Amino acid sequence: MRRLLLSLFITALALTAAAEDGHQLWLRYQPVNKAKVTVTDKVSPTIAIAKRELETYYDGESVTLKLDASMPDDDGFTIDGTTITARRDAGLLYGAYELLRNQQLSADDANYTYTTHPAFSLRLLNHWDNLDGSIERGYAGESIFWKEDNAQIIPFNPLLIEEYARANASIGINGTVLNNVNASPKMLTKPYLKEVKKIADILRPYNIKVYLSINFATPMALGDTKTADPLDKSVARWWQKKAKEIYKLIPDFGGFLVKANSEGQPGPGDFGRTHADGANMLADALKPYKGIIMWRCFVYGANHKGEDRVKQAVSEFKPLDGQFRDNVILQTKNGPLDFQPREPYSPIFDQIKKTPNMVELQITQEYLGQSRHLVYLAPMWEEFFSFVEPSSLKGIAGVANIGLDRNWCGHHFSQANWYAFGRQAWDPALLSESIAKEWLIQTFTNDAQFVKTVSKMMMESREACVKYMMPLGLHHIFKFDHHYGPEPDGFIASYPLEWCPVYYHKADKNGIGFDRSSKGTDAVSQYRPEMARLYDNIETCPEDLLLWFHHVPWDHKMKDGSTLWESIQAEYNAGVLAVEAMQIVWRYKMRHFVDEQRWREVDERLQHQVENAREWRDVCLKYFGDMQK
Amino acid sequence: MRRLLLSLFITALALTAAAEDGHQLWLRYQPVNKAKVTVTDKVSPTIAIAKRELETYYDGESVTLKLDASMPDDDGFTIDGTTITARRDAGLLYGAYELLRNQQLSADDANYTYTTHPAFSLRLLNHWDNLDGSIERGYAGESIFWKEDNAQIIPFNPLLIEEYARANASIGINGTVLNNVNASPKMLTKPYLKEVKKIADILRPYNIKVYLSINFATPMALGDTKTADPLDKSVARWWQKKAKEIYKLIPDFGGFLVKANSEGQPGPGDFGRTHADGANMLADALKPYKGIIMWRCFVYGANHKGEDRVKQAVSEFKPLDGQFRDNVILQTKNGPLDFQPREPYSPIFDQIKKTPNMVELQITQEYLGQSRHLVYLAPMWEEFFSFVEPSSLKGIAGVANIGLDRNWCGHHFSQANWYAFGRQAWDPALLSESIAKEWLIQTFTNDAQFVKTVSKMMMESREACVKYMMPLGLHHIFKFDHHYGPEPDGFIASYPLEWCPVYYHKADKNGIGFDRSSKGTDAVSQYRPEMARLYDNIETCPEDLLLWFHHVPWDHKMKDGSTLWESIQAEYNAGVLAVEAMQIVWRYKMRHFVDEQRWREVDERLQHQVENAREWRDVCLKYFGDMQK
Repeated sequence: MRRLLLSLFITALALTAAAEDGHQLWLRYQPVNKAKVTVTDKVSPTIAIAKRELETYYDGESVTLKLDASMPDDDGFTIDGTTITARRDAGLLYGAYELLRNQQLSADDANYTYTTHPAFSLRLLNHWDNLDGSIERGYAGESIFWKEDNAQIIPFNPLLIEEYARANASIGINGTVLNNVNASPKMLTKPYLKEVKKIADILRPYNIKVYLSINFATPMALGDTKTADPLDKSVARWWQKKAKEIYKLIPDFGGFLVKANSEGQPGPGDFGRTHADGANMLADALKPYKGIIMWRCFVYGANHKGEDRVKQAVSEFKPLDGQFRDNVILQTKNGPLDFQPREPYSPIFDQIKKTPNMVELQITQEYLGQSRHLVYLAPMWEEFFSFVEPSSLKGIAGVANIGLDRNWCGHHFSQANWYAFGRQAWDPALLSESIAKEWLIQTFTNDAQFVKTVSKMMMESREACVKYMMPLGLHHIFKFDHHYGPEPDGFIASYPLEWCPVYYHKADKNGIGFDRSSKGTDAVSQYRPEMARLYDNIETCPEDLLLWFHHVPWDHKMKDGSTLWESIQAEYNAGVLAVEAMQIVWRYKMRHFVDEQRWREVDERLQHQVENAREWRDVCLKYFGDMQK
Repeated sequence: MRRLLLSLFITALALTAAAEDGHQLWLRYQPVNKAKVTVTDKVSPTIAIAKRELETYYDGESVTLKLDASMPDDDGFTIDGTTITARRDAGLLYGAYELLRNQQLSADDANYTYTTHPAFSLRLLNHWDNLDGSIERGYAGESIFWKEDNAQIIPFNPLLIEEYARANASIGINGTVLNNVNASPKMLTKPYLKEVKKIADILRPYNIKVYLSINFATPMALGDTKTADPLDKSVARWWQKKAKEIYKLIPDFGGFLVKANSEGQPGPGDFGRTHADGANMLADALKPYKGIIMWRCFVYGANHKGEDRVKQAVSEFKPLDGQFRDNVILQTKNGPLDFQPREPYSPIFDQIKKTPNMVELQITQEYLGQSRHLVYLAPMWEEFFSFVEPSSLKGIAGVANIGLDRNWCGHHFSQANWYAFGRQAWDPALLSESIAKEWLIQTFTNDAQFVKTVSKMMMESREACVKYMMPLGLHHIFKFDHHYGPEPDGFIASYPLEWCPVYYHKADKNGIGFDRSSKGTDAVSQYRPEMARLYDNIETCPEDLLLWFHHVPWDHKMKDGSTLWESIQAEYNAGVLAVEAMQIVWRYKMRHFVDEQRWREVDERLQHQVENAREWRDVCLKYFGDMQK
């Protein structure tokens, strides 16, 4: 009997421990059921959520929610003590979450008075989810939206979608693209649109609009038209009809995200038309419903095939600037290549002046250790905004790192990237370090020692990753396809050259790096003049981008007096040391601040990260070492 | 012919490179032969050296050297522009070296006016050199003073001794003990004393007095007396005669250093007499000539055998305080055990009030990686002086790290410990970091990048060594005899228990550490009350000495929330990382600041240090890890 009791006791303990699986994200308020919430206006579904959240979790006597039509027409709000005022229902919702966040972050009953407006009107997640449930560049399980079995739709879990909505609302995200940019034509068929409607109905009260990625050739692929030529009337009509159908189901549908004529996707180029022709045809179809087209600038290997890949987007889109409808937005990755740990900003942001721009950031860590490395991305985005004025952008999109894993993101610390994306999307001037700290406090504990130590670790993590994966501007020497480990000798003759590591590092016995100066591919000329000059000159080019812009002799003198080859060795080694230091701190010093399950899961990943960092160092130094001899 | 020329050219290059062997130490002035030096007094041999050094190396028009009888009677001096004033000839010499040092350290012609006096009147090196040429705890080759072949004295190299004298004078050292404290009776025989005289003649103009370590039983060992009982008249007479003989040869002979009744050395205890009896007999013999006795307090295993080793010195000497002649000084190691990388200060300095004290520091890195690890010791000595007021001490002795190796000290960076010892012996308030920087500038280059990076490395090196050798106050878990690598399971039944690592760490399944609290051996009670209270309480005991003073459960909560066992693991690992970081910086970033030979020799030693640090970590964590399971 005693043994049975003991065994039950142990089981109970195990369950308690196992319960801390990270699923709660940063939303760990304890119910207090205390506040009386006064709403001065009609209680819409959105306001009802704000009210319910505050009634349940706010640890104060009363809160007032008030609409004010004199405020600017955006999602902003004013907090004055315990009164939240906003122009829109959404503003009251965001204000409610802010009040709860303030409560989590500070012990005292501070009497805040301030107004805040979002920097971008469009704050979107992009899900690269396929209808079969897989996720391109997804490292946290399968899609929360989609699943098929024998070509039959398996319904999503509506409770999970509501949790997802709440988490996004708590950090101000107001839109989501539900499917992969490499889109299936099926997405726009009736059965799937019905699913989209169900999702939209769940997200709507949380002020989150749904958007869809579309396959440009959908009408043709579905057999409804003979072509997908955007100037063909039957095609345009098809899209108009489809728009009508969608908006009937989802009156506030956000619009389309389009990857066209890129990496094998169909597009207007297939019919001799321009991106503007294609985007405008779609824009016209959505215009009556206030829908927008987000047209991606991530194109290469098409019209400008053979040109330095990082130049092709500007080459393609600059001549079209001014030709787009006013409900078209160009969506461009932060860097000109492809989500490397460090890239210079994309020169699109210097060159496209007449068309609204959005930046596409990647939250999922495709080239940054995926869900196995602890890499906090907010400093990278902060770096981007130091080159590109947020006010020059209409919107911001983040490629989501969310999947069916219990903790949503695979790595517990990858949740911080989702969180930080939302916070920076609201206010890019927030310091990445402050965001790390507020996330840690809400997600783990407000212990000062823990927050200080672990925020430091987070802040150093991206630079560490840069050091062991792509020091001094080296780039794209990742293994083919999976983009995780190193493959500096990567070359497959049947592949596009732009997929091959050797194309990017160009190491030979004389030197290493990609000459994009005016003496090379002249990619520097796509930048605004002062940046072009800075990058063009090997003496002024920032050393952390040296090999991005220059082919440099191995014995080139660095600013600190060492040679290039010595510096490369120093960087790879320092990157490994930095991860080892993170691991030691987490393993031996942080255990008692964190529940057993999350501590162990992070610890195991750090062990793996150390091993992978060493692999990067050893493989690359061996390869380049042989090269430079 | 061309090939021959080329080959000659390469040979010449190789010779040039090889020439930088570190022999020049920090004395790298370039001859300018410019300054006119005016001496207002009689030019003694000491003043002549000052004059010559300035005439050769000072890059100014004129310097005046002036004696001033109104100044305090010590080795201090005043620099007023280019006039040096001093009470003694030695002061002018030290002032001359200071002027040259200032010249090396600052590019501009600064117009200094300041006066400086040495903190200690006795600033001595102790050489643990044996007459056969070996050096106990010497890691830089054989003795520069002694060598025998078939019991015949091989003469020393007088040029080398003069270089040694100059180096010491340049940093203010004014005395040297020429032989090992485990002394041979032969030392006091005529042939050896003649050698001592020759050395003294070379050192004298550089203001360096010679001292000798003596074997307490010398008269008996030489067969001149039947006993060495200090109260025996024949013995006292022998010493009086010996003193007369010595002072006839060396009128300014400094005195004797005595290790008695310790680790097998003879002493007054062998005849039922006290240390005071022994010291006083010798003091009386030297008194007529103003000689002094430096009597070492490093005793254990004698009268207080069985007592906690760190307590035995106070137990032995405290009752004798007040019984010593006024020309006896007690010389005590900085810590109560034996030159560990970190020890608390020795409580002798709290307990001996009526007898002058000297501190004995160890420059040679017996327990700190010897000449294979880069460990800068000045921060350790700085730490000592934060507990023991320099003004409470009459003198300072440093166990030298000098040998016949071309670079004097084995490791190029070990030169910094010799240099820093001299500088701190003059002024213990000098910051160890400033000393590191001035040493680097004089020894390598004044490049700001180099000095900043490498001084940081030096400053972190001792703490790194503590972490990988004796984290949190663990101590003496060194391999038997050679004191280099780890041997945590070290126990040899036939050895004194106080030599065995297991005696010191006392690790078992319950915990680890030596309980010296009031509940244990009560060693804490030997400290002044406020320190005794601090160390006695496990809650207030500094964590870097925790296992020195307490036996602590493995799961003890540290101040940062981790357990003891976690902290131990963190420390060992962080120590290794710190050395790896040093190695990376030196290997990949410092090469161009340093000549090839010194760079490579340091680099090779750093590689070895990394490997040894890893061995410490792995061996100790394995052993303690098995223990704590």
